[in-house]
Amino acid sequence: MTEKIEDTKNILAETHGRVELLTLNRAKSRNSLSESVIDQLTAELHRIAQTKTTRVVVLASTGTVFSAGHDLKELESHRQDADGGRAFYERVFAKCSALMQAIANLPQPVIACVQGVATAAGCQLVATCDLAVAADNSRFATPGVDIGLFCSTPMVALSRNVSSKHAMEILLTGELISAEHAHRIGLVNRVVEAGKELEVSLALAEKIAQKSGRALRTGKKAFYEQAHLPLNEAYDYASKIMVDNLLDLDAKEGICAFLEKRHPNWQDD
Amino acid sequence: MTEKIEDTKNILAETHGRVELLTLNRAKSRNSLSESVIDQLTAELHRIAQTKTTRVVVLASTGTVFSAGHDLKELESHRQDADGGRAFYERVFAKCSALMQAIANLPQPVIACVQGVATAAGCQLVATCDLAVAADNSRFATPGVDIGLFCSTPMVALSRNVSSKHAMEILLTGELISAEHAHRIGLVNRVVEAGKELEVSLALAEKIAQKSGRALRTGKKAFYEQAHLPLNEAYDYASKIMVDNLLDLDAKEGICAFLEKRHPNWQDD
Amino acid sequence: MTEKIEDTKNILAETHGRVELLTLNRAKSRNSLSESVIDQLTAELHRIAQTKTTRVVVLASTGTVFSAGHDLKELESHRQDADGGRAFYERVFAKCSALMQAIANLPQPVIACVQGVATAAGCQLVATCDLAVAADNSRFATPGVDIGLFCSTPMVALSRNVSSKHAMEILLTGELISAEHAHRIGLVNRVVEAGKELEVSLALAEKIAQKSGRALRTGKKAFYEQAHLPLNEAYDYASKIMVDNLLDLDAKEGICAFLEKRHPNWQDD
Repeated sequence: MTEKIEDTKNILAETHGRVELLTLNRAKSRNSLSESVIDQLTAELHRIAQTKTTRVVVLASTGTVFSAGHDLKELESHRQDADGGRAFYERVFAKCSALMQAIANLPQPVIACVQGVATAAGCQLVATCDLAVAADNSRFATPGVDIGLFCSTPMVALSRNVSSKHAMEILLTGELISAEHAHRIGLVNRVVEAGKELEVSLALAEKIAQKSGRALRTGKKAFYEQAHLPLNEAYDYASKIMVDNLLDLDAKEGICAFLEKRHPNWQDD
Repeated sequence: MTEKIEDTKNILAETHGRVELLTLNRAKSRNSLSESVIDQLTAELHRIAQTKTTRVVVLASTGTVFSAGHDLKELESHRQDADGGRAFYERVFAKCSALMQAIANLPQPVIACVQGVATAAGCQLVATCDLAVAADNSRFATPGVDIGLFCSTPMVALSRNVSSKHAMEILLTGELISAEHAHRIGLVNRVVEAGKELEVSLALAEKIAQKSGRALRTGKKAFYEQAHLPLNEAYDYASKIMVDNLLDLDAKEGICAFLEKRHPNWQDD
Repeated sequence: MTEKIEDTKNILAETHGRVELLTLNRAKSRNSLSESVIDQLTAELHRIAQTKTTRVVVLASTGTVFSAGHDLKELESHRQDADGGRAFYERVFAKCSALMQAIANLPQPVIACVQGVATAAGCQLVATCDLAVAADNSRFATPGVDIGLFCSTPMVALSRNVSSKHAMEILLTGELISAEHAHRIGLVNRVVEAGKELEVSLALAEKIAQKSGRALRTGKKAFYEQAHLPLNEAYDYASKIMVDNLLDLDAKEGICAFLEKRHPNWQDD
């Protein structure tokens, strides 16, 4: 049932039927997002974007840290560059922001499966995923403020997930919050017993993967497109999407199957 | 005390003093929003918009389903049209989006009184109302994804009510959520014992109906106008509204009555 | 340890090391925001904005009312003006909106310490502060609707703090909500035993004041700048901030100290 596609040093990619499981596999470096990890994760997402048989992605991790964010040692090493690191920093933050937007722009929904501490850009990854399942002992923080480096890019994702005062508290204190608190404020969808997070994430992914891939792609894209529009523009946009969706083969089949009380057969099954 | 104005097949309209109660009355069709129901509900709202004696609207429903959303059989029947249904679908989604915006643009606040299952555009109705009271056995879903038809228009209202991850979970899984969960994430204001929802909705409406109708109209309009503006523009706009409001007769009377510790007499009492 | 800088009639200002404590001191007038109080509070904020040694501000109050909002008697007295009060109302709402924006634009984070009832523009103050700590017997309302004067300017801050249905319920009913409810919906960060709110606020302020002032200023400004931008523009903006922050002296020191496991020495310590 499970076919292993690739096993690089940094990212493991496994296909579970219609679900793709990507696993950060750099536990010794606290799954930090070095330039190389960012490049590889972005490449995996670009590959998956072209894979119509994949309907849902689970982004998991190994070890006790989901991801500690940027690789501080790598960032520091570039202080020796002729420009003091500016060119490297511009490149790595552009790449990291592109990675986060690649998750939002991926046709398939992405579920974060959080097994440990998610900090800085690691917390940003969780906030960026469409859904998140967290182990009850996982924790979250944006601790950049403690090292004089405010988590400004993680803030973009965090402040689009939780309300203003909650985001500010996390950003200004830099303190770890519990999975339970993250759940209460809307950063994660579900908190489960530690050790069950991958099972629950894959089951949630499998449930979503039963839907029409075309409908999932249509809907996820529309979600982010309409989010910042004024109400009337959002409705003009969404109504057009709805009409096109209704005329699509999968809606025809889906509605027929529903009225005939049978399972639908989707176009890209 | 209660004067019955009209009793059509689809929508019941009753005037309870300053509160207008609109009731979806098509339980056998799961109160689905056929073109005719959309037209009639929109017409009722246009009528109420002109009725200055009405200060608050309660939108209730009959049977075990608050509303199942669009009428799938009606949608399907238009596949036989020469254009495969496109013209009808464009018309019905334009009308439905206009209905939702008519609720937001109605001068009077609208309270959804949810007694059963509210799905797809039925859930959108609840999200669109200014306030919502729900029976403790009511449930909510946007299950379009199950029939290949992502709930893109319900998403517009839902994503403006609940946080991003909560909205995504509801939209991607299509699963029913409980009234309690809906309350936790901000989709409804109050959950009450099943059978008490109309009583509580009308009492809440009556409480609001004691306020100045002019102030309610001013405030509701300003709420939606300023919502998407940058902070400085929102303050410029709201400050102007505030000054005009202060110079209005009802504020003069209201502040006088407050300082004199007596009940105010509003202009349109 | 505590140095008292100034003790005017309306606002007390005390410096607690890197934390500035501003206290509304007009309990007999329910700490209402008369033009004079608005002017003085705005002046204090402008002073603090220039004070690099101050890293965090706590805004507290005296008596049983945090602030009752605008001074109704003052507003009423200007009805006698030749223009019925318009010029005064325009000035005082422009000033009040400028005060609220001065809090958002202040380089330092501001923590509201709420010891009593916060209503109308008093509730707006709490919503406007970056963080809020509330006594468990404190309460919140926007009761303008009861006097024919909808709380349109408080709405700007409130609707940017809590979800749409929660904001509407508070605005339309004018009813007092409990500290616990305010916490549940995101209006305040922490609810503490009455009498402990100042101690907890100052401790929270002190924790934040240990961070780099430059990082705090960078981050707070970026938070509000990026909040209303579309995702790609927000990331372009925040990435640029991040690169500049990395090249700043405090990030260099902070990262070094972190890697060397020692306490950092910030530029403006």
